[in-house]
Amino acid sequence: MSPHDGSQSISEPVSEPAFDTVSALSAPTKPMSAPVSVAVELSHHISTESRLRQQSRLKMASSFLTRDPSILSLAAGLPSPALFPIEQVAARVAMPEPESSRADGKWKGDGLRKNFTMEYSKTKQCTELGRSEYDLSRALQYEQGTGSRKLLDFLKEHTARIHKPQYSDWDCIMSGGNTHAMETVFRMLINPGEYVIMEEFAFPETVDGLRPLRPRLIGIDVDAEGMRADLLEDILENWDEVAREGKRPHVMYMVPTGQNPTGATIGSERREKIYALASKFDLVIVEDDPYYFLQMPAYVPHATIDYVPVPRTNEEFQAALVPSMLSLDTDGRVLRLDSFSKVIAPGTRCGWITGAAVFIERILRHNEVGLQFPSGISMAVLHGMLTEAWGQEMYLNWLVNLRAEYTVRRDVMLDAMEENLPKEVTSWVAPAAGMFVWIELSYDRHPRHGTLSREEVEQELFEAAIASKVLIMPGTWFKVDYSGPSRSVFFRATFAAVAQEDVREAIARFGDVLRRAYEI
Amino acid sequence: MSPHDGSQSISEPVSEPAFDTVSALSAPTKPMSAPVSVAVELSHHISTESRLRQQSRLKMASSFLTRDPSILSLAAGLPSPALFPIEQVAARVAMPEPESSRADGKWKGDGLRKNFTMEYSKTKQCTELGRSEYDLSRALQYEQGTGSRKLLDFLKEHTARIHKPQYSDWDCIMSGGNTHAMETVFRMLINPGEYVIMEEFAFPETVDGLRPLRPRLIGIDVDAEGMRADLLEDILENWDEVAREGKRPHVMYMVPTGQNPTGATIGSERREKIYALASKFDLVIVEDDPYYFLQMPAYVPHATIDYVPVPRTNEEFQAALVPSMLSLDTDGRVLRLDSFSKVIAPGTRCGWITGAAVFIERILRHNEVGLQFPSGISMAVLHGMLTEAWGQEMYLNWLVNLRAEYTVRRDVMLDAMEENLPKEVTSWVAPAAGMFVWIELSYDRHPRHGTLSREEVEQELFEAAIASKVLIMPGTWFKVDYSGPSRSVFFRATFAAVAQEDVREAIARFGDVLRRAYEI
Repeated sequence: MSPHDGSQSISEPVSEPAFDTVSALSAPTKPMSAPVSVAVELSHHISTESRLRQQSRLKMASSFLTRDPSILSLAAGLPSPALFPIEQVAARVAMPEPESSRADGKWKGDGLRKNFTMEYSKTKQCTELGRSEYDLSRALQYEQGTGSRKLLDFLKEHTARIHKPQYSDWDCIMSGGNTHAMETVFRMLINPGEYVIMEEFAFPETVDGLRPLRPRLIGIDVDAEGMRADLLEDILENWDEVAREGKRPHVMYMVPTGQNPTGATIGSERREKIYALASKFDLVIVEDDPYYFLQMPAYVPHATIDYVPVPRTNEEFQAALVPSMLSLDTDGRVLRLDSFSKVIAPGTRCGWITGAAVFIERILRHNEVGLQFPSGISMAVLHGMLTEAWGQEMYLNWLVNLRAEYTVRRDVMLDAMEENLPKEVTSWVAPAAGMFVWIELSYDRHPRHGTLSREEVEQELFEAAIASKVLIMPGTWFKVDYSGPSRSVFFRATFAAVAQEDVREAIARFGDVLRRAYEI
Repeated sequence: MSPHDGSQSISEPVSEPAFDTVSALSAPTKPMSAPVSVAVELSHHISTESRLRQQSRLKMASSFLTRDPSILSLAAGLPSPALFPIEQVAARVAMPEPESSRADGKWKGDGLRKNFTMEYSKTKQCTELGRSEYDLSRALQYEQGTGSRKLLDFLKEHTARIHKPQYSDWDCIMSGGNTHAMETVFRMLINPGEYVIMEEFAFPETVDGLRPLRPRLIGIDVDAEGMRADLLEDILENWDEVAREGKRPHVMYMVPTGQNPTGATIGSERREKIYALASKFDLVIVEDDPYYFLQMPAYVPHATIDYVPVPRTNEEFQAALVPSMLSLDTDGRVLRLDSFSKVIAPGTRCGWITGAAVFIERILRHNEVGLQFPSGISMAVLHGMLTEAWGQEMYLNWLVNLRAEYTVRRDVMLDAMEENLPKEVTSWVAPAAGMFVWIELSYDRHPRHGTLSREEVEQELFEAAIASKVLIMPGTWFKVDYSGPSRSVFFRATFAAVAQEDVREAIARFGDVLRRAYEI
């Protein structure tokens, strides 16, 4: 036979491919204050897999059309929008209460909401209630790997306003939600066998997603305020490549606000210390922060006050938010993952990643040969809601509303815990953000603490709770190191989606379970 | 410091992890004829990365709730649907013409279409036109990694009807479209350094997506009927592990119908031969088949007849379809990728993968820690259209419509080519499916064929076309082996989304370019 089989070694030997530093995709939108400098050179953090990504030659084609729109194209293999059977999409969305409704700092529920209807049409028809400039033909067609430019512009403006990045060449790109963003970012940063720093407890899906990439995970102990900076420093400072059989970690993953499962939020001072360590030891920080806007006021038992305090103005709201790792980032070493899942709806499968242009470009190359872009229908509805119905200021009003609603839910659970859990053997910290309460149980006070291990106590309590018809998550399930020993007995309870009467009943039952088990 | 940092080697040494064969996720829906046996054992094809995927311990939690719905759950970290601001979504879709409208076998355009409106509500309101049983609260919430069960049921029924899988434990899972499905399937099958078989020309994004996975690609020559089975057999039969420095390929990727860019469709007999080779040499076939339903009748110049023939009945339509590789598959070695991008709309970012349960389970594990599921809003609209507005039979009517529309577009282009391109130096095969015509140009007849290489002739013609304001894709851009020599001069033209007058004008200009270049 002819040996013309195009046989080609794309990648052997597996050496570090050359990497061309790329320019920013686009300038950031409306920075709130002029950043002083560009990000430092951090392309050495990019994995072998990610270095092998190339821009498609077909993308060159579109540059001809951009330069001269009079060119007739037989090039792009797009289907014809005339043959899309979806003729029109409409959505009705809630309107957040205006800032003025909370001038007294008290939350009054959602009685003032009105609805807003948007309509997306292939023929740009409009309704009496509202019409969308967003062309449905475009929303249904192939989109760039960045996601919809119009929606991205809104998100960049929002990001600039909230996080005020301190370097100039930052950018955003859309993702299919934070789980998708994590896979993308981890693949860009981690080579097999490398160490990665995390909190000691994590959402199991995060570890499940990392495992196939074969990193080695280091869980840093968490206290009431989240990841301990002193332990982080100790590990980085005293890293022993020989004993560890590997280099010092260059990637750190963290959920700094309302951490899942511990509910912990890292305060400003500790954040600054952690960022300084990352800068000193050249770590890239993956800031997974879906609960950022669910930061709540201090817990006060509802026997004491009968209302939930809310920020009077959006400025006050923003000022009270703990600074994100992104906002502290002068080097361009934070990759911030934002999601609509916790603040709008998970079903949108839509989020965005913010970071230095050198990283965002690699993610774009991945998007183009992976998901491509989030659902165009999702993006159309989000764009209509965020820009046409709401706008930047109203989006903050929505987030204030949401924060108040979740505060009520948190307080119902904490009230029930105060009332029903045996104080002698339980302790917890009222979460300052998120959806979770982390309950620690005494091991030493358990009647059979000599006979049973901490894990066995936890398992027994879990089973007793199930027998009493309460499902509550054992802490062991969240350990980054599944096989290592536990240092205490923990349970995670969530207050996000449970009806108030069910929360009270479930906590009461769990209290009974504990009293029986601890023979109180 | 305390050495309690949870340091853990997840994956070192990088050896083959144990793999537990898993049971089917669910039984296939309504098989049309009772399949005789289960798939053969093929789990040895699964990559190291994919073997490392584990089911999350959190999923165990939901099994308690399934068994006893009276259990109160403080477990799942879901946001509250009451706090999703999207209150209602509605869509209006085209209704395909009924089967009866084409009893004479002639296509009459879309004059008979009516619209159907669906409404999805968190409170299940309904309109006078239609209402959806699909709960918007569900569509906006987290979904299983399989995608929506209701939509998947429809897709499984459709797949059973069209492809009639010949083994019993097949299943389907949803993807974010075929590009996303490719990344998922390739990661499941390919270890770095392994050889993968493809067609000699491919969509560049496919190669761009494979490159970071570091396979070695073998492009099999393509003739008018697609991938040559004789060359495939030769390569597999005479594989020399020493000379090739690697094992015989165990994965083959193909676009068997309306291939991009060659437009070729493999006939039944050659498909059977290729499948037999895959079975003999233990290959897994990735069947990427977005153009399957765009199979068209033989081209007849419109000077000869003035109508487009259409199948009189859906049975006739189905009988005329070339059998898919999936339908020939007795072993469970075909992974079929179906997409809505070419038959509904790319913006849905929604498709599905069909294959043996052992593979589908691995994909599910990946989905759970990646995209999770396609947009819930996309799935709601698709479900409403496919099941509530249309149903299985009407979906086939839609596909017949679409096929006829694209046949008209193909014929406009082929008519223009017949009329305008210089026959002395050009040749092409009328495509039997898809969106592309592959035009071969004579190298030997080019005035400077001794001086210029084939690639240089192609590049010169490409630039001359741009100067004449026509963008048409050079064949070299699609070569699986970018660096190897070309055996001819090719261009790809697409007729899918271009207006008829623009197609005629663009082809006329390209004809002029060729006549000037070839001095005709």
